[in-house]
Amino acid sequence: MSAHVTASQETADTARHGSTLATAFEEELADFLAQRERFLLGIDPDLGLLYGVARDAVLNGGKRLRPTFAYWGWRAALPLGAVGEPAFIRAAASLELLHACALVHDDVMDSSETRRGRPAAHVRFAAEHAERGWPADATGFGRSGAILLGDLLLSWAEEMFTEAIGRLPAGRCVAAQAQFDLMRTEVVAGQFLDVLAQTRGAFNVDEALRVIEFKTSKYTVERPLLLGAAAAAAPSRVSTALAAYGHALGEAFQLRDDLLGVFGDPELTGKPAGDDLREGKRTVLVAHALDAASDAQREIVESLLGRDDLELEGVEAIRQVLVDTGAVDRVEDLIRVLADEANRALDLARDTGSYDAPALDVLEALVAVSTARQS
Amino acid sequence: MSAHVTASQETADTARHGSTLATAFEEELADFLAQRERFLLGIDPDLGLLYGVARDAVLNGGKRLRPTFAYWGWRAALPLGAVGEPAFIRAAASLELLHACALVHDDVMDSSETRRGRPAAHVRFAAEHAERGWPADATGFGRSGAILLGDLLLSWAEEMFTEAIGRLPAGRCVAAQAQFDLMRTEVVAGQFLDVLAQTRGAFNVDEALRVIEFKTSKYTVERPLLLGAAAAAAPSRVSTALAAYGHALGEAFQLRDDLLGVFGDPELTGKPAGDDLREGKRTVLVAHALDAASDAQREIVESLLGRDDLELEGVEAIRQVLVDTGAVDRVEDLIRVLADEANRALDLARDTGSYDAPALDVLEALVAVSTARQS
Repeated sequence: MSAHVTASQETADTARHGSTLATAFEEELADFLAQRERFLLGIDPDLGLLYGVARDAVLNGGKRLRPTFAYWGWRAALPLGAVGEPAFIRAAASLELLHACALVHDDVMDSSETRRGRPAAHVRFAAEHAERGWPADATGFGRSGAILLGDLLLSWAEEMFTEAIGRLPAGRCVAAQAQFDLMRTEVVAGQFLDVLAQTRGAFNVDEALRVIEFKTSKYTVERPLLLGAAAAAAPSRVSTALAAYGHALGEAFQLRDDLLGVFGDPELTGKPAGDDLREGKRTVLVAHALDAASDAQREIVESLLGRDDLELEGVEAIRQVLVDTGAVDRVEDLIRVLADEANRALDLARDTGSYDAPALDVLEALVAVSTARQS
Repeated sequence: MSAHVTASQETADTARHGSTLATAFEEELADFLAQRERFLLGIDPDLGLLYGVARDAVLNGGKRLRPTFAYWGWRAALPLGAVGEPAFIRAAASLELLHACALVHDDVMDSSETRRGRPAAHVRFAAEHAERGWPADATGFGRSGAILLGDLLLSWAEEMFTEAIGRLPAGRCVAAQAQFDLMRTEVVAGQFLDVLAQTRGAFNVDEALRVIEFKTSKYTVERPLLLGAAAAAAPSRVSTALAAYGHALGEAFQLRDDLLGVFGDPELTGKPAGDDLREGKRTVLVAHALDAASDAQREIVESLLGRDDLELEGVEAIRQVLVDTGAVDRVEDLIRVLADEANRALDLARDTGSYDAPALDVLEALVAVSTARQS
């Protein structure tokens, strides 16, 4: 357990300094991984290759959104300085192992070369293969390694979560475990619906929003918040307010991400410009554009979207359609409406007087950060 | 909970009739899946596709080896008619969900077309795609669907296991959970070592045996037995005897499976003749052959093993080398030695007088069944 989170005074400090919370998550993850490294190398030194890619997939500077929302859901529902903080910090950090699994497998499914500006796990395994001069198919090895790595991370997520949450009182432990279970099933369901939407071709705004609901809204924001609230034995009106907040913010967050995937600066996103267009992502943004497109505009999108060999010129052509059809404006409007909705849920929460006010301030700040335009 | 396993008299019957135990596993799995079907379809009717392939991947007539060994490990360590049987049956059945994940992902990694004589999950998804006339890449959809399906099955395995084992007294629950965690990590570790061995090309008998240890011995036999023993709060000398039995039997079982993969009747194995040779599996059998091969024999194996387009003639040529080098005889000898070792562990167990004698008889019968030649 990290030295940063053992005393309740430090807990209160954590609440005020985001960087300390982030450090606590990193330390919990590093501590867990170090244990697992010993176990794997005890089986066979050759597993060092698997472990190395696992470590980099987890400790890669991710934004730790899910642990952060879990933590603030917990804090929002619990009196300051309450018992259980170290255990809950560790349980929250475990959500990053789940997320690392999702990303590693997602990159295999999408054949994405990079993740956060660095080679994706399957590319890493393939490169290690090539470097060692092994004879068989490097790409196949990369894919197999990444599938197994994701399975390992998924199992580890549950081990880390269950061990940590088990230190809370039994009732809370069971309630939080139920949210964790829902989170795991819902993210797979959301991803499957996403894959279906991509593969079917035909899709509309409603379908794109439904994918967002499970793939991002619940998985990234709502479920972590409710998991935290459950671990704090939150009364139902607290959970209800957090759910409303999480649902709106999660949707807004994904819509902002969709805009960044098309218009974002590669320096900030860690992905090549227009990467989402090359992957052919069927987003709400694209759905709105197709909805309002002229025949000529539709033809541009349909002929270019999802082409592996899409050059900057093609990216620009699609971007132009997204702007000209008003799709960008509509999505920006939607983000604004959703951000307001999230903030209204917080206001209602404040009015009940039963919440940790500093935690609500942090949740409000997270709305601003998650939905703001990035230039 | 199944009606078949609620009364302790029926429990005793179960011990005597393998088919009743198998039925109980099937019913627990079907019951769990039906709950999950409702949940998935509640999210979106489109998830019926995911659910359908999940159900077929689980309820496909597998041999249920892992639940069976878990059950007999439990029984061997527990007085007849002891409490907790229904919960433990359900916990044991959950190991099949873990195994279904392993098989679904394995088939993606190996690009295997069939599993138990039927289309592999990724082939199923691809076929559903083609049938619906969707535009995008059917193979890619098949792979993505199968990766997500495996993730779902892995999460479900843990949910089903934890919920069921949680009904046992707390200490037993924790001890069994620890075995479950080891099982999940060890199978991934074993599979990774296997993939490494396949990809490196160069390998020897020792390396091939090490892969077997984690990929099969522990995962299929030893760990399930110890999981059962832990759930029954077995004293350490019981666990030690079961571990010795499981280790030997697991290795023998895999060696028999390796022989069947090369010489087995396609009608019995559910796979095309010589499929393991086409996949290029680096087995103990092949390692022994290469160890003893003349230059000409080595050339035959190295030029043909792992070729996608291997015809029956090539299969026959490799088979001949495996026989002529004495590799087949050596592996048959090894199976015999290991089967004796497993039976000796049971004899020691009998001598302590602290075991459930009928359970030991079943474990002895499992040695015979798992290691016998099949013509």
